[in-house]
Amino acid sequence: MAFDAGATGVYPIAPTPFLEDGSVDFHSLDRLIDFYQASGASGVTILGILGEAAKLASEESRAITRRVIARTDIPVVVGVSAPGFAGMRLLAREAMDAGAAGVMMGPAQHLRTDEQILAWFANAVEAIGETTPWVLQDYPLALTCQLSVPIIAAIMEAHPSCVMLKAEDWPGLEKISALRRLQAVGTLRPFSILTANGGMFLDLEYWRGTNGSMTGYAFPDMLVDLYRLQAAGERDAAHDLFDAHLPLIRYEQQPGIGLAVRKHVLMRRGLIKSDALRRPGSRLSPAAIDEVGYLLVRLARKDSRAKP
Amino acid sequence: MAFDAGATGVYPIAPTPFLEDGSVDFHSLDRLIDFYQASGASGVTILGILGEAAKLASEESRAITRRVIARTDIPVVVGVSAPGFAGMRLLAREAMDAGAAGVMMGPAQHLRTDEQILAWFANAVEAIGETTPWVLQDYPLALTCQLSVPIIAAIMEAHPSCVMLKAEDWPGLEKISALRRLQAVGTLRPFSILTANGGMFLDLEYWRGTNGSMTGYAFPDMLVDLYRLQAAGERDAAHDLFDAHLPLIRYEQQPGIGLAVRKHVLMRRGLIKSDALRRPGSRLSPAAIDEVGYLLVRLARKDSRAKP
Amino acid sequence: MAFDAGATGVYPIAPTPFLEDGSVDFHSLDRLIDFYQASGASGVTILGILGEAAKLASEESRAITRRVIARTDIPVVVGVSAPGFAGMRLLAREAMDAGAAGVMMGPAQHLRTDEQILAWFANAVEAIGETTPWVLQDYPLALTCQLSVPIIAAIMEAHPSCVMLKAEDWPGLEKISALRRLQAVGTLRPFSILTANGGMFLDLEYWRGTNGSMTGYAFPDMLVDLYRLQAAGERDAAHDLFDAHLPLIRYEQQPGIGLAVRKHVLMRRGLIKSDALRRPGSRLSPAAIDEVGYLLVRLARKDSRAKP
Amino acid sequence: MAFDAGATGVYPIAPTPFLEDGSVDFHSLDRLIDFYQASGASGVTILGILGEAAKLASEESRAITRRVIARTDIPVVVGVSAPGFAGMRLLAREAMDAGAAGVMMGPAQHLRTDEQILAWFANAVEAIGETTPWVLQDYPLALTCQLSVPIIAAIMEAHPSCVMLKAEDWPGLEKISALRRLQAVGTLRPFSILTANGGMFLDLEYWRGTNGSMTGYAFPDMLVDLYRLQAAGERDAAHDLFDAHLPLIRYEQQPGIGLAVRKHVLMRRGLIKSDALRRPGSRLSPAAIDEVGYLLVRLARKDSRAKP
Repeated sequence: MAFDAGATGVYPIAPTPFLEDGSVDFHSLDRLIDFYQASGASGVTILGILGEAAKLASEESRAITRRVIARTDIPVVVGVSAPGFAGMRLLAREAMDAGAAGVMMGPAQHLRTDEQILAWFANAVEAIGETTPWVLQDYPLALTCQLSVPIIAAIMEAHPSCVMLKAEDWPGLEKISALRRLQAVGTLRPFSILTANGGMFLDLEYWRGTNGSMTGYAFPDMLVDLYRLQAAGERDAAHDLFDAHLPLIRYEQQPGIGLAVRKHVLMRRGLIKSDALRRPGSRLSPAAIDEVGYLLVRLARKDSRAKP
Repeated sequence: MAFDAGATGVYPIAPTPFLEDGSVDFHSLDRLIDFYQASGASGVTILGILGEAAKLASEESRAITRRVIARTDIPVVVGVSAPGFAGMRLLAREAMDAGAAGVMMGPAQHLRTDEQILAWFANAVEAIGETTPWVLQDYPLALTCQLSVPIIAAIMEAHPSCVMLKAEDWPGLEKISALRRLQAVGTLRPFSILTANGGMFLDLEYWRGTNGSMTGYAFPDMLVDLYRLQAAGERDAAHDLFDAHLPLIRYEQQPGIGLAVRKHVLMRRGLIKSDALRRPGSRLSPAAIDEVGYLLVRLARKDSRAKP
Repeated sequence: MAFDAGATGVYPIAPTPFLEDGSVDFHSLDRLIDFYQASGASGVTILGILGEAAKLASEESRAITRRVIARTDIPVVVGVSAPGFAGMRLLAREAMDAGAAGVMMGPAQHLRTDEQILAWFANAVEAIGETTPWVLQDYPLALTCQLSVPIIAAIMEAHPSCVMLKAEDWPGLEKISALRRLQAVGTLRPFSILTANGGMFLDLEYWRGTNGSMTGYAFPDMLVDLYRLQAAGERDAAHDLFDAHLPLIRYEQQPGIGLAVRKHVLMRRGLIKSDALRRPGSRLSPAAIDEVGYLLVRLARKDSRAKP
Repeated sequence: MAFDAGATGVYPIAPTPFLEDGSVDFHSLDRLIDFYQASGASGVTILGILGEAAKLASEESRAITRRVIARTDIPVVVGVSAPGFAGMRLLAREAMDAGAAGVMMGPAQHLRTDEQILAWFANAVEAIGETTPWVLQDYPLALTCQLSVPIIAAIMEAHPSCVMLKAEDWPGLEKISALRRLQAVGTLRPFSILTANGGMFLDLEYWRGTNGSMTGYAFPDMLVDLYRLQAAGERDAAHDLFDAHLPLIRYEQQPGIGLAVRKHVLMRRGLIKSDALRRPGSRLSPAAIDEVGYLLVRLARKDSRAKP
């Protein structure tokens, strides 16, 4: 599987598993990565926001990168967000030296005008290396910077090394259509669009022209099934599968605590040992655990993977 | 039905119907208000964000207020957000003089610290009148100001005229539980909590202690059914009903374009004549209309109210 | 004096004087407007942020507009900021019907991308009327929206009715130079640039290409002198005058409390009767009054207008 | 000189000098640090925003810290801002192990409510070590988080290891008075308050109760003189000195480009070899260099240190 402008399928965003004492749980990481590959994922993304990247010491980030790349055959994309270009340069070089397929970055929080955004990405691409393949993360809800369709097009034209858009603007459906229209008439070069935003619109995004998903939902195996149904044109079946999972998808997509939900479900599924987060993250309350349990029981009636 | 700290049930947020030429469509407004009452709504809220309040001339706002109050027997709550206290004073006086049950207001956008927030509400309550019953809108995603549990408690203690919390923080489940815990141990006085946020968590919020909902979902009749099932302890049936609607609820809850979706569905249901919005709002794209239609077809299999 | 793209000189931003009981003090308003004209102001701007416009009832705003226009021979510019286009349409029509020379507006707070900004101004200009002369206020510190040089140029090209830029970005010197360069090579049409930002950079802005100032400093007579010295090429004398006032200019330019300082100084100068503000504004503390008094004593050594 | 709650005088914020090729210029750094000490500074702060900390690789930060501490006898405070607690823990440990007197940190950008702020500082203090002396940076204009007087008091009470407030809120004079009043009546423990904000209010802050300054103005020697005049009660002389420098202080205090101005002036003073910044920073335009030159010529008439 290639990580390029033609990439398709599912790239799960991997959380970083911790042991109860807060150290990185490499055994769970191995199990998780193996599960992604076995589930049919086209690639995997590590050290994003969901991976608690900002809570890791740089040695830990490097160790995780090397471990994952050594473990799996599918392309590994590494998040390289950092407060400055020096940090991004370092992270990108380490990732690519370790064998990553590419890196991921989103715009810095303070960027507002189109002029500022284009200048920032010029510096950022210089920092990660002009030939390093990268994913543009468009996630205004978390990153605060808003990217319009014209500015995404301008970034893509200025930087041929960008091979993929991680589309998680909200609302985002018209944006996907607008980009695909520009490509259809030839005024914008081709690139892959994978969607995220917790997967909240996966049932509809495919028909707008996306190539798959890059999100951290705790049932990545369902994401692969969903993509295959869509690619096969099985629209109703795809919706049925999606609708069964939507109550849980919606629950996982809560800002801030969503990661605790995901880790908890992954733990219940036996994929990681502990649902511990590093501070300032916290675990689920007893009431939340009950809610997740109830949603899983309901889901299990339609998808046996949710059975305890 | 009383609008006080013991209020329960469903208070739909009413959109303002317009004709194709942009003028207020009072006939559709009548039909909509009649439908709310006939559906079993406990009250109705007008001139909120969803009601395009900021796009109305003051004469129009007054006319709408008088029309709705004259039309219905259920309590009418009127949004009084304005850039300054003078505007809020005027709007609140007009609403109460016209016979409103109370008013609704959320914190100004620039407020940050607890000190600023408490001072602002002291001024705001003085402006609307110390005895005017009001709803506190907690909606950080749209209003940007964040209200912690301690500051909500402080506002409630400082202002006995606040009878209701419109809870639409996201995530919001733990916040509801925390407020109810304070009330259970007697350190916080009682008040009603209705939830909004497009209804995205209505299946779970009731069991956290809410008293109903105040949201603009285009099936307010379903919201009443849902509340009744929950109040009757029919948890599974309530979830089944909710799950059937969730794909559409999710589609309506998209920031910005959500109102266009709601007006479109209300028009398809025959409740308003046109789905026109005032600028800068715009109507749905053909692709979005197709998606809504498809979601309604799927919904109709489980809830006949969605049939064309 | 004409209010058009060739406008020059000083347009003071007028505060709205209140009596101790909070009502509008029309006698002080007359005195203030007379003083502006007698001081050599080229025009006057009313109902801006400094004019506490958001704290006025609409009847008060109309009364102030009519009073000022009837009182003075110089062009009157009226702020028309409002939460929606309906409000802006109404305010602009009332102002122009009353005989205003033009209106002033800045971008709405939520605007981010170039695409959003251009679309918003298209709607706003349609609302105020395509032929109504207007001032573009560029004030990111207060309005949060940032306007780059390319987007200002695009607004100016799209809307020939915009005759003036109220430049108060910070930093702003390079921005003025960049706009003037575009005009020098003929890729941007001519328009007037008056600077504000409390006057903090008036000593330097003129030489970057500005045509005067539009700010609320409590010595508008000094602003006129400064402009005349600059226009006469008396750079050192202009700096000497500016430097004498800078400690007070700096004190007045404090966000939030700056208006209280200005009203206090205007009261001490005998130009308004009371330094009262409407809520949430508050008066100066005793310590601040002492500081202002001390700064005035020091200023009086160099400019006798500051004498008690 | 001790770095504790009784600290007084001037702690310059040191820029990081670079050579033309972008590498750290350790010789200039030595010269600069020597100059601070020779000028009578009570301490020095490195690796703050002004020190371009986010643009340094971690090895560079460590090398700078060790170099400065080895070079000087005065207390060295080290900025430890980082995106997560893991990074802060590492930076603080490295700084203290190298012999720093303490560390500096400001609140993370996303913090809003009092509850969030207190929880964040509890985690942050745990990360840097409960006994590590630290400076609380209150700089809303750059950090966006606003700290009210009650929340600063709460932080100070919760964390005895905080010995100093770097006060750079704007406006900030009333805040200083309010904190000193709380201390005067014994409801708040003592701590040092040094002011920053580019030094824009240094003439007035001392009389509100501050103990000196911690800012990066390119004439730290003047800051020491100013403090001595104030401490000696020479108010008029202090103001005369301040007023002479205010036009340049104001020019340096421009957001974003202020650092370029400072490096340029330090270079003209012979204190650093090059005025190079790392990206995204850029050097001054020719017009700006002319303006700085002109302001220095004017300043030199009153303070010979500004002579070329």
